Amino acid sequence: MGGTWGNKIKLSIFGESHGRGIGIVIDGIPPGIPLDFKAINQEMQRRAPGKDPYSTKRKEPDQPEILSGLLNEVTTGAPLAMFIQNTDTRSRDYGNLKHTPRPSHADYPGSIKYRGFNDYRGGGHFSGRLTAALVFAGAIAKQIVADKGIYIGAHIKQIGTIKDQAFDLVNTDKKILDALNQQGFPLLDKKQEEAMKACINQARTEGDSVGGKLECAIIGLMPGLGEPFFDSVESRIAHLAFSVPAVKGIHFGSGDALARMRGSEANDSYHVVEGQVRTTTNHNGGILGGITTGMPVVFETTIKPTPSISQEQQTIDQTTQQPTTLKIQGRHDPCIVQRAVVVIEAIAALAILDLL
Amino acid sequence: MGGTWGNKIKLSIFGESHGRGIGIVIDGIPPGIPLDFKAINQEMQRRAPGKDPYSTKRKEPDQPEILSGLLNEVTTGAPLAMFIQNTDTRSRDYGNLKHTPRPSHADYPGSIKYRGFNDYRGGGHFSGRLTAALVFAGAIAKQIVADKGIYIGAHIKQIGTIKDQAFDLVNTDKKILDALNQQGFPLLDKKQEEAMKACINQARTEGDSVGGKLECAIIGLMPGLGEPFFDSVESRIAHLAFSVPAVKGIHFGSGDALARMRGSEANDSYHVVEGQVRTTTNHNGGILGGITTGMPVVFETTIKPTPSISQEQQTIDQTTQQPTTLKIQGRHDPCIVQRAVVVIEAIAALAILDLL
Amino acid sequence: MGGTWGNKIKLSIFGESHGRGIGIVIDGIPPGIPLDFKAINQEMQRRAPGKDPYSTKRKEPDQPEILSGLLNEVTTGAPLAMFIQNTDTRSRDYGNLKHTPRPSHADYPGSIKYRGFNDYRGGGHFSGRLTAALVFAGAIAKQIVADKGIYIGAHIKQIGTIKDQAFDLVNTDKKILDALNQQGFPLLDKKQEEAMKACINQARTEGDSVGGKLECAIIGLMPGLGEPFFDSVESRIAHLAFSVPAVKGIHFGSGDALARMRGSEANDSYHVVEGQVRTTTNHNGGILGGITTGMPVVFETTIKPTPSISQEQQTIDQTTQQPTTLKIQGRHDPCIVQRAVVVIEAIAALAILDLL
Amino acid sequence: MGGTWGNKIKLSIFGESHGRGIGIVIDGIPPGIPLDFKAINQEMQRRAPGKDPYSTKRKEPDQPEILSGLLNEVTTGAPLAMFIQNTDTRSRDYGNLKHTPRPSHADYPGSIKYRGFNDYRGGGHFSGRLTAALVFAGAIAKQIVADKGIYIGAHIKQIGTIKDQAFDLVNTDKKILDALNQQGFPLLDKKQEEAMKACINQARTEGDSVGGKLECAIIGLMPGLGEPFFDSVESRIAHLAFSVPAVKGIHFGSGDALARMRGSEANDSYHVVEGQVRTTTNHNGGILGGITTGMPVVFETTIKPTPSISQEQQTIDQTTQQPTTLKIQGRHDPCIVQRAVVVIEAIAALAILDLL
Repeated sequence: MGGTWGNKIKLSIFGESHGRGIGIVIDGIPPGIPLDFKAINQEMQRRAPGKDPYSTKRKEPDQPEILSGLLNEVTTGAPLAMFIQNTDTRSRDYGNLKHTPRPSHADYPGSIKYRGFNDYRGGGHFSGRLTAALVFAGAIAKQIVADKGIYIGAHIKQIGTIKDQAFDLVNTDKKILDALNQQGFPLLDKKQEEAMKACINQARTEGDSVGGKLECAIIGLMPGLGEPFFDSVESRIAHLAFSVPAVKGIHFGSGDALARMRGSEANDSYHVVEGQVRTTTNHNGGILGGITTGMPVVFETTIKPTPSISQEQQTIDQTTQQPTTLKIQGRHDPCIVQRAVVVIEAIAALAILDLL
Repeated sequence: MGGTWGNKIKLSIFGESHGRGIGIVIDGIPPGIPLDFKAINQEMQRRAPGKDPYSTKRKEPDQPEILSGLLNEVTTGAPLAMFIQNTDTRSRDYGNLKHTPRPSHADYPGSIKYRGFNDYRGGGHFSGRLTAALVFAGAIAKQIVADKGIYIGAHIKQIGTIKDQAFDLVNTDKKILDALNQQGFPLLDKKQEEAMKACINQARTEGDSVGGKLECAIIGLMPGLGEPFFDSVESRIAHLAFSVPAVKGIHFGSGDALARMRGSEANDSYHVVEGQVRTTTNHNGGILGGITTGMPVVFETTIKPTPSISQEQQTIDQTTQQPTTLKIQGRHDPCIVQRAVVVIEAIAALAILDLL
Repeated sequence: MGGTWGNKIKLSIFGESHGRGIGIVIDGIPPGIPLDFKAINQEMQRRAPGKDPYSTKRKEPDQPEILSGLLNEVTTGAPLAMFIQNTDTRSRDYGNLKHTPRPSHADYPGSIKYRGFNDYRGGGHFSGRLTAALVFAGAIAKQIVADKGIYIGAHIKQIGTIKDQAFDLVNTDKKILDALNQQGFPLLDKKQEEAMKACINQARTEGDSVGGKLECAIIGLMPGLGEPFFDSVESRIAHLAFSVPAVKGIHFGSGDALARMRGSEANDSYHVVEGQVRTTTNHNGGILGGITTGMPVVFETTIKPTPSISQEQQTIDQTTQQPTTLKIQGRHDPCIVQRAVVVIEAIAALAILDLL
Repeated sequence: MGGTWGNKIKLSIFGESHGRGIGIVIDGIPPGIPLDFKAINQEMQRRAPGKDPYSTKRKEPDQPEILSGLLNEVTTGAPLAMFIQNTDTRSRDYGNLKHTPRPSHADYPGSIKYRGFNDYRGGGHFSGRLTAALVFAGAIAKQIVADKGIYIGAHIKQIGTIKDQAFDLVNTDKKILDALNQQGFPLLDKKQEEAMKACINQARTEGDSVGGKLECAIIGLMPGLGEPFFDSVESRIAHLAFSVPAVKGIHFGSGDALARMRGSEANDSYHVVEGQVRTTTNHNGGILGGITTGMPVVFETTIKPTPSISQEQQTIDQTTQQPTTLKIQGRHDPCIVQRAVVVIEAIAALAILDLL
């Protein structure tokens, strides 16, 4: 029952990669919001496959159909249901995978959990394709939080060993986020783009894939959001972030570096700027004791390399328990980090919407 | 409302650092479990303050009183409530903190969230002292999961810049975890102990503090636990881990290194060992698609340096919004990493118990 | 956010009477269940409008489309999403209702709650039409619980002042429930059918409507299900029962009569029959302390008369706050009690499935 | 896991009749509420046993100790934990009950559910004594909702066959509720008091008990509270009402009579009074489509006769499965209806607080 999430909003995600389609029900959207479908479609396109040579060749129009909750393109307050039909599903590509689990995919643990009844075609319900539903929900969440002056943006922080610079934890502003939003391959330091793309191309040429990192910033948050202990802002963002397939780590603020710091360095001193309480540094990433401080909330996620590679891999035949090899024939991404940018922004927006 | 957590068990945590005490209600504990109070008290002692020169001088007997849910020291199945009275609370130490928020503590965002009504003494409800309640609950959870052959252990992976070696992701076994459990300062490579303790002492001498990392392993898990998407095993462990004050990051499996890996390297091939499906490597840390694979679940958490330091710090007076300085007089830890070991083990045990 | 429900299963209902359609996502259905679509469609037909002269003339094929969670007509364990398109929606009938709330409908409180943005056509999201989604989910739940020997059936206990006899609280068995299930107008005492139908027809002739009562029995339950206090079996069944529009009361066991009884009469004595602990009477309706006893769970619900009547009614114009009158032109049922039978059975099945 | 409840507040109830005591954790109480302990204690006294000849002789000071969440008698916003020690527990009275379940108590289903490990003394966790915790929480909830102009009161509507008059569904006001609140045996028609008390005394004399009904009114509610479907106001109130041991039925508004009414009679017409939309009648009890209309919310609960009677009863020995008889020796109430008045008010207040 991992299909529902939320306290003040409730998300119910459903669907499979190679079934009828995928969708989501969002309960708790306030009434009276005129949905900006142009913005929603732009967000969908940012995640959509097949749009550049760095991604899978699978082409899906990814056209969200609204099933409920809208009247004259304005939210009614009733549950908003959305469905995207699958149109380009070559299931035959996956026929041979039923009993030979793909390494680092959910095939094996999924077959155990669901006793062999899971839809194994293209990962079925475990497919990254379901993140399209999160992007849809996130696009709406972004619109609602933007009305309250809260903005969200993310950039590729690392591909393989090549790194972008990090967000300025104190001064990241809407202008910077807007600039990232304009880019198909969002970086703070555009000079890294060529090397990163070369790294992806190299992996593709070798039938391989690469991982990376994303960094996301949320600005304009009021202080005092969140809860101590079990519903800390970090807990809620991390919970959703790990819902995204391929995310294997998350760090807030200065992240990994905090382990090496002294308290005298890591502590963020208070001062007042134009009547606003702010911190001079923001190593804590805008969250203390689980509660927002009003400073930017910044977090970094680690994305593992796409498990679908075209190289031959060792696996087993689950029916005979004998070793066998596997070559994945289907279309796949040599890197999903750039497509995941909008997904991470979406979960950030949904986490914030749920806190407001 | 961050005080409750869980699906199959429900935890309700309460209390304050300098109030009457702290406690927890655990609903959903199976009936018929004879609680091992010796083991529970050992766990409490592992977290307890004042036991070594590396920790705060505050001494608390931390004696858990059972308020309900037990009959003849056996669980009844009804909610198990536990309370620990505060005995050594020198509240006068904190009187001057009401309006001068301590940097990197929850004082400021807490005062906004609770409109100044929060118990500010020693962090109040935000205090790390509440983790004693998690340790209590975790001790019970450990006992229950151990009956199913699931064992949990953790070690200090880093203090400042000094690192212990990492868990073997494939072969970590009960013997290794038992050995860690015996140590007051658990390390895989005992040769690092001296340097780590020196690092902590150096910080204390300078009125400063240090951060670090912990690594936790869960072995003996059956494959197929967890849920896709919103209740992935990573989501649930991370949710609880970020409930622990001072945790600022979490990574599963090979963690940070996954960003730099190729798919061909990161993918964990399947093979069969004595009739058991296993992977030859375990970069994914025992979780794929949110579901356990049967391999060890291993995760690393980043602990920020203790924010309480005795050096003078810049802050503001919240009533006047004027800058001021602050010297924290109370007892405090120069490093909490070693005390957090058992807390992280506790949340791992609770997350697993909730999944079973 | 009333669109989600459940602990072990999660239901997410959505849709509107005169929008695209209605649907439900059911998360937590076990994998490997071959859905019996013939049985599902029979259940849908039991609720469907337009099938007899006692119901609304609106005709809907009510054909459920499965959007996810099935492979080869067997459940996969992933969320099962279902959608029913609206086909016969004459929205023009409802145009005049936007500002003149229909008495005893949700129009007025709904317009306040959703600040006028609610879909007002035919009740929108508040429409009884959404119970078709409950019937669908209930049909699946019935199939699953029947595999465990648990059977559910209901009869019309009262229409206006005409009463059917009550279930035998001790000896109701599958044969009795099966017999009810065969009837379009299920009664224990068929002699009441004519009078009840005459009562409905009389109301219809006068442009009026009538209320009634339903009684539902669940047999084959094992003792020990449910929880003390907040998740008593009564709490969970009642919670779902009051989700059904028009339900205004619920009683368990001997119901109303318990208020008049002495303890010596109401207490259900224990005895052992063929190795099974049973009670000689069952005034408590199979539930003690919130927990099943193993005796039949029997409850009665009160259904208010359909609020849609064709007589002229007093209301107000919400824009001017002036009094006005209203004649409801749309199709409507003079009595929904007979159509609600399968809905009440559905919520009983869902409540039990959630407890198992 | 029936010990937790709520969306916007979370209640965690714990304790046993003959253990250390009982208590509750309330999470989500707003900060800054100065608790009125005099009012809280008055409420506790209204439920407390031993105060009149119509109740059990057991005397408990029922003195709530606050364990957390208060500073200077003002709520901090952190979880508020409360504990009441048991002081007058004569456990020896219950020793013979371990294997001979008392009819209509939870002893038998509880022993199955908890596999014999439940605390059987005096009903243990199933005891009506735990409602003292609800009364405490309800007293706080009442204080908070009263600050918003919402008032709650209840009266005894029936004892055995003797009936009080019903609330005026339209015009019940604070004056009427205040008057009820002053009475130890609250009735709208005081002329029934003597007969009701005689009925209780008669039962006591005969070693028997009687049931009855309570009616509760909530006034001052704004329209638009609640949710369609699964979180209807009826669903939430009923869910909590059935958490109270002995409640076996609930009806809203005109209740049972709605089954006999025509729509033309039951429909509540709208009109405007001093700028407020109101209904001329209120058969629906202030709730339509699950949402408040702004009219009084009125509901009636059926209370079964106290199962503890001193007459000899038939039961079984669970160890031998042989028939046996039982005479309950402990102290017990011949009627709990009058003590349940404040409990029902409490759950009404908690349900409303959770909706606000």
